[in-house]
Amino acid sequence: MGDARSSGNDASAGTASFVHRIRVGWADCDPARIAYTGRIPYFALEAIDAWWQHRIGNDWFSLNIDRNLGTPFARLEMDFRFHVTPRAPLECTVHLTRLGETSIGFAVDGHQAGRLCFQGKFVCVFVVADRHEKTAIPADIRAIAEPFLSAPPA
Amino acid sequence: MGDARSSGNDASAGTASFVHRIRVGWADCDPARIAYTGRIPYFALEAIDAWWQHRIGNDWFSLNIDRNLGTPFARLEMDFRFHVTPRAPLECTVHLTRLGETSIGFAVDGHQAGRLCFQGKFVCVFVVADRHEKTAIPADIRAIAEPFLSAPPA
Amino acid sequence: MGDARSSGNDASAGTASFVHRIRVGWADCDPARIAYTGRIPYFALEAIDAWWQHRIGNDWFSLNIDRNLGTPFARLEMDFRFHVTPRAPLECTVHLTRLGETSIGFAVDGHQAGRLCFQGKFVCVFVVADRHEKTAIPADIRAIAEPFLSAPPA
Amino acid sequence: MGDARSSGNDASAGTASFVHRIRVGWADCDPARIAYTGRIPYFALEAIDAWWQHRIGNDWFSLNIDRNLGTPFARLEMDFRFHVTPRAPLECTVHLTRLGETSIGFAVDGHQAGRLCFQGKFVCVFVVADRHEKTAIPADIRAIAEPFLSAPPA
Repeated sequence: MGDARSSGNDASAGTASFVHRIRVGWADCDPARIAYTGRIPYFALEAIDAWWQHRIGNDWFSLNIDRNLGTPFARLEMDFRFHVTPRAPLECTVHLTRLGETSIGFAVDGHQAGRLCFQGKFVCVFVVADRHEKTAIPADIRAIAEPFLSAPPA
Repeated sequence: MGDARSSGNDASAGTASFVHRIRVGWADCDPARIAYTGRIPYFALEAIDAWWQHRIGNDWFSLNIDRNLGTPFARLEMDFRFHVTPRAPLECTVHLTRLGETSIGFAVDGHQAGRLCFQGKFVCVFVVADRHEKTAIPADIRAIAEPFLSAPPA
Repeated sequence: MGDARSSGNDASAGTASFVHRIRVGWADCDPARIAYTGRIPYFALEAIDAWWQHRIGNDWFSLNIDRNLGTPFARLEMDFRFHVTPRAPLECTVHLTRLGETSIGFAVDGHQAGRLCFQGKFVCVFVVADRHEKTAIPADIRAIAEPFLSAPPA
Repeated sequence: MGDARSSGNDASAGTASFVHRIRVGWADCDPARIAYTGRIPYFALEAIDAWWQHRIGNDWFSLNIDRNLGTPFARLEMDFRFHVTPRAPLECTVHLTRLGETSIGFAVDGHQAGRLCFQGKFVCVFVVADRHEKTAIPADIRAIAEPFLSAPPA
């Protein structure tokens, strides 16, 4: 793996889960001495961006710039189970839960030291980036993504 | 009003909605030339923090430091209806939708130039800040907040 | 004033200073209960972006999108004199200190409740946005900006 | 290495430089399709926080919470040489350049794909965290840090 934030996915291609490990630091924490709530969606989104990079071969930047494809979010929801701190790496597991005609769904859960900290669900829509126009998921992306499709975690 | 970001609430005490106006700038935007998705929960949370300041008289900082009270988030959900840009101020309307025994619920919707950009729902839990222990909503806060309670927007 | 974060400049056109008022909140603070150091350059940059909007009539977004002009930073330096907290609005005063052939310089200082919190100096370079190529300051911008030129604050 | 963002330092204890590798993503970029200037100080500060963790054994969070020690910034300066993008990991090299009685100095430079993107210098002051009072650098920290002291890079 070339870089540090976007890290360790499980090696086997047949496995449905992808883990993106994040360093949580002082900068992420608020006066309650835990990661600020507003940072948690950032962490989950970073994990989805890393999923794109490692599973599909294009992160959001490359999708947009090189392929003129955007995947803006239509919806997100998150349940916060336990606070996040700098005491341990944050392991974000990304599940691909839906491949629609023009939309894609993810579930992301975050663990620290084995404890579940948050669970989130996300829906994105494919658009032609420079026209903001809905478009079908390209066949090559669908072909690569499909084997990773899994039921959302309970 | 003393400060700029946390602004204009409607003057009448009997009105249920509170509007917090946010300047969206270059720093908030991603290469798609719209506010980055991860910024939207930040905006909504800033509006809730401003609601506390203007409605109750304590923002989160003051609640925590001066009253040893925290209100960590248990859940959030957001639907993104239209992109947010620096072309107009972002008007975030905060509705108090629930006052439980130990929890409080908000709905926040964001408009730019009259167009609905996002809608969100938020649940927070009261805790004794330095012990992270759930606690009942203090009577004085409940008394001030109750008149502002309203049904969530459709 | 159309919006909230980007606020109060002194009315008179002949005055060299421009004040941008920022709401500092819980989200900006770290476990030391003060605004995180990394936020301070953000605040100063937001003030410079607001200066563009109010003095010149184009914020960075509009400069880039509507005029194909970028002003990337070549250098910044900041001295931190006193911590920043959510207890008072942060008043950022922006001085235009230099108008070169292709570069522009600013000084920004931040006060809370009358106390100096930080001082910063910034140098930006004009570029044709879509080509990242250095370019001379356009004549209309120079003409509007020049009357605001002032010596950097002591 | 336990975590992802805070990564790879060169193995040998006698070497003066420490490299912290950062994943730059879509979230860090602005409409100019490069990392937003305000993010660069964040990156450099994250690298210094990682230096503390790997060199001294306490990151800022642990220094503050476990040892009641803060190291607030007195000054920073940064020169931006080339834009930062998501196309390659950002390698931040941290040099300890000064160990005063109560202050500590760092130089951080950032490279992508072998090209220098920015250089920065930073001065921090030791304080008793809960009293915001200047204090001498503790002897154990000085003893561990001293071998890493080096001249600032040219």
